[in-house]
Amino acid sequence: MMVNERWYATHFKELAFTECLQLLGSSPGGRVAYSSDEGPVVLPVNHVMDGEDILFRTSPHTELGRAMRSGHVAFEVDEFDEVSRTGWSVLVRGDAEYDDSDVLLPEDRPGPWAAGTRNLVVRIRPRLVTGRRLLAR
Amino acid sequence: MMVNERWYATHFKELAFTECLQLLGSSPGGRVAYSSDEGPVVLPVNHVMDGEDILFRTSPHTELGRAMRSGHVAFEVDEFDEVSRTGWSVLVRGDAEYDDSDVLLPEDRPGPWAAGTRNLVVRIRPRLVTGRRLLAR
Repeated sequence: MMVNERWYATHFKELAFTECLQLLGSSPGGRVAYSSDEGPVVLPVNHVMDGEDILFRTSPHTELGRAMRSGHVAFEVDEFDEVSRTGWSVLVRGDAEYDDSDVLLPEDRPGPWAAGTRNLVVRIRPRLVTGRRLLAR
Repeated sequence: MMVNERWYATHFKELAFTECLQLLGSSPGGRVAYSSDEGPVVLPVNHVMDGEDILFRTSPHTELGRAMRSGHVAFEVDEFDEVSRTGWSVLVRGDAEYDDSDVLLPEDRPGPWAAGTRNLVVRIRPRLVTGRRLLAR
């Protein structure tokens, strides 16, 4: 621990962008959020990274699929340890779009864990990426 | 497994309300979501249940604290196993308010893991509680 990080020992420590990207890439899944007339909706999905973009697969026939056509969305990953009460979280605020760029080979595309027709690939382009680590007291 | 659940073996299985409540109660933390001008925001918090309501503590001087004054919010808990690709998630859509009801004794109030001034107790009253389990293929 660097000396100037000590003050944060009982607080959140903001994460650098590169660390946020690394944590996004090492997480097998996260949670996508969108706004509906009934307020925000948060659903877990498994994702892959394409550079700084987030890709995941879903069905075009669901509310989630329809909500991803365009607009502001969020994507969150986190990991906490209940015993030590330490952990981290990363929040991506960005814009969703349907992806047909074929930049990824089929085998590199995110495979949904849930079966069914999930042939819609959604791309989230980050506008703002923030993260924080909760350090031991 | 009941016979009529077999069809769901490669799909999501919807969870009953009582099971959702049990999973909310057994989770040490979850993620609260609110809508901002820049789209949805998702942040992890540790919570306790008060009946069907969710309580957590934060600072009144943060964007999260200000966003919890009123309005539609969401709260999500989940747990997934990367190896077996099974897990579950519960989503609460409800309304947030500042809580000063003193229905809980101080020692029962949710203790935030992060230090600092987090003397605002937020109550989320559910309007809609849904959950699903991802079963092994």
